[in-house]
Amino acid sequence: MTRRKSDVFQSSRPVARAERVTRRLFLKQGLAASSTLVMPVVGIGASVSQAPDTPPPMKPLTSPGLPFSNYGQPSPHEHRVIRWISANPMAPANGVSWTPLHDLEGTVTPNSLHFERHHNGVPQLDPARHRLLLDGMVERPLQFSLDALGRYPMVSRLCFIECGGNSSAAWRRQPLQAHAGYFHGLISCSEWTGVSLATLLAEAGADPQAGWLIAEGADAAGVSVSLPVPGIIDHALLALYQNGERIRPENGYPLRLVVPGWEGIVNVKWLRRLKLASEPLMSRYETAKYTDLLPDGRARQFSFPMQVKSLITRPSVGFNLPGPGAYEISGLAWSGKGRIHRVEVSVDGGKSWQSARLQEPVLPACLTRFRAAWRWEGVPAVLVSRAIDENGEVQPSRDALLAARGEHSRYHYNGLVSWLVRGDGAVEHVYL
Amino acid sequence: MTRRKSDVFQSSRPVARAERVTRRLFLKQGLAASSTLVMPVVGIGASVSQAPDTPPPMKPLTSPGLPFSNYGQPSPHEHRVIRWISANPMAPANGVSWTPLHDLEGTVTPNSLHFERHHNGVPQLDPARHRLLLDGMVERPLQFSLDALGRYPMVSRLCFIECGGNSSAAWRRQPLQAHAGYFHGLISCSEWTGVSLATLLAEAGADPQAGWLIAEGADAAGVSVSLPVPGIIDHALLALYQNGERIRPENGYPLRLVVPGWEGIVNVKWLRRLKLASEPLMSRYETAKYTDLLPDGRARQFSFPMQVKSLITRPSVGFNLPGPGAYEISGLAWSGKGRIHRVEVSVDGGKSWQSARLQEPVLPACLTRFRAAWRWEGVPAVLVSRAIDENGEVQPSRDALLAARGEHSRYHYNGLVSWLVRGDGAVEHVYL
Repeated sequence: MTRRKSDVFQSSRPVARAERVTRRLFLKQGLAASSTLVMPVVGIGASVSQAPDTPPPMKPLTSPGLPFSNYGQPSPHEHRVIRWISANPMAPANGVSWTPLHDLEGTVTPNSLHFERHHNGVPQLDPARHRLLLDGMVERPLQFSLDALGRYPMVSRLCFIECGGNSSAAWRRQPLQAHAGYFHGLISCSEWTGVSLATLLAEAGADPQAGWLIAEGADAAGVSVSLPVPGIIDHALLALYQNGERIRPENGYPLRLVVPGWEGIVNVKWLRRLKLASEPLMSRYETAKYTDLLPDGRARQFSFPMQVKSLITRPSVGFNLPGPGAYEISGLAWSGKGRIHRVEVSVDGGKSWQSARLQEPVLPACLTRFRAAWRWEGVPAVLVSRAIDENGEVQPSRDALLAARGEHSRYHYNGLVSWLVRGDGAVEHVYL
Repeated sequence: MTRRKSDVFQSSRPVARAERVTRRLFLKQGLAASSTLVMPVVGIGASVSQAPDTPPPMKPLTSPGLPFSNYGQPSPHEHRVIRWISANPMAPANGVSWTPLHDLEGTVTPNSLHFERHHNGVPQLDPARHRLLLDGMVERPLQFSLDALGRYPMVSRLCFIECGGNSSAAWRRQPLQAHAGYFHGLISCSEWTGVSLATLLAEAGADPQAGWLIAEGADAAGVSVSLPVPGIIDHALLALYQNGERIRPENGYPLRLVVPGWEGIVNVKWLRRLKLASEPLMSRYETAKYTDLLPDGRARQFSFPMQVKSLITRPSVGFNLPGPGAYEISGLAWSGKGRIHRVEVSVDGGKSWQSARLQEPVLPACLTRFRAAWRWEGVPAVLVSRAIDENGEVQPSRDALLAARGEHSRYHYNGLVSWLVRGDGAVEHVYL
């Protein structure tokens, strides 16, 4: 993985006389007067605005612009905003591609940048021939075409999907120097629409004794996982649409099991079978993989909900602050168990904390954007965020997580992430 | 504009013995027991599911699937899900392209399918050289690079943008037979992120006497509009991001004025200048265009907020119901003045109405998905939806709208839209 510098923060020119304006601005917005402010903030205007001489005269372009398009694409100037691919050189259909969280804002992930995790590539499925089989401990085994599924009542959920292996580099002894999205970006957030699992289980006449649902994908890896029915019956859906349009091939076209807030692997892509059973399958994806060896020798298995977590995305590794002054700290927080209640931000490596603003609406199992104003004095500073969810669960320090989970964990890292802003404005990943 | 048939509803096969299951299903979900149900619903299973013989054995694919991609694209099977282009043959950079609402579900519009309205094509702007000038009745005229704007506190808004000319074919004397999206699809919904207008006006020291803001785009048409400052100061933003990534070229890259809930033309794309003034500009986009001649000879001008409106998207023109049975009616409702309070659905051409389910979260000036169950008896039925917003404003009938606005209106159609489901299952656009 290589590093590339961001264009952000590079071409602004300081104009000192705007500083008092910005002070007034922040007071007017209630930021400076608020106890939730990270730092007293003045001076964004000091470094970013310039007073022009005379406005340039209106010069209409002399020729029409580009024509309409049936399916739009990003500006060529944004060609570096991509999913970074980390595939296994010996098996290139096995690996991941990362959502560039450091390049994005807001909470919705565009479909083209939703992270990928494939165990054996993206199958090419014909929607006219694809079927979902629902069998096992049911009164009536059923098989559904996509047209058939499209007749059932639908529900939509704006929620994140996070790979259980996201942030796994944070378990390493030395902090990885990579863009935030390229080691924490196995998380993306979409509006998923489809048929609720409860609808189909009722349709088939599910046996109340069936405690487990086995979900199987149609990919060449044949990914199969086991899910406890009581834990998912109220919120899982069989998604046909992602952010309005049909699911993208790499995200499960034409059908994906979505279990809001639960680890990515159980959100089975290219779904072709659901089987009700009394016991879990114990597939390789819930035994050899996606489990963690604990210090006492036991394995941490079926660790489904993604725990409370947050990450500062701006600034982060790859950004270069052009000089002292006011900045906005922006990041993402999430919990698989509910809504984010509060995000705290520290600019002194965790010695002191203040609450960040949360962007509304704050939804359960959904990315929540947080933002906080900060005045950088031009000396080294360590930025950290810490999320608390509505259940009172607090994102742990890295040390606390390591103490609880030991040296052999590879999944479910949700510890604090710290960025050192150096005196020259460059940003490094550090461990506290 | 040609018509194309949808794949939906075409390949399902009836299996009668599932009918009682579906009845139980809807009872269990509380739909059939609810007074808000449009019709007693049974029998989706009757026409969509089939019991298989023996499940097909697990056959792993013999070769890995497609590799990872830096920027994903839809399945080739979805190549017909496009923006339909309606451009002026004499001036092909002037026209629209339509969001295919009839192909989409949920509320978020993927960026590639966000509608377009260009007056002279899509300018190719270099973000490194683009500047926003803020001048006029301000203490300090300011000019911002994009890097500079990126330093200010940001806000995100999930909201719709609707062209003032959306649904204009509904003013015609005869009902247009076209897909729902191809004459009501000049509306799309995105999460927009950027700097609030209030922040920049405060930064420049806006004169309290400046009642109007003149916004100007950098396109070859030089689109300019006038906006009343008190009406927009609390919610307008200068957007840099659309659904997480940088704004698409056709939607204003690199900078767009977004005024949630107000007609599309004032959401100025390719924004290059904001000027505070005491009077409106009276540009062609607020005099010759985007105004309506009323019956009394006066012009309806500066009609900014989009009024309460709704539309059934499924089924609609182009769908073919395969036979009697249970269906879900699905559609979109919105109001530029706030939240949707209720959507009523009729299946008898407006004789009787029942409330539809609203998908949460219901947000102000945002698309709201509504859904209602319906049992089709196989005889002609006329489907209509009617939205009520939180201010109590009710979507008017087409006749009431025509009576109020006369024969010469071309903009701001928000009347009811009716679909006739014929006995053979095909759908036609009709006027009540």
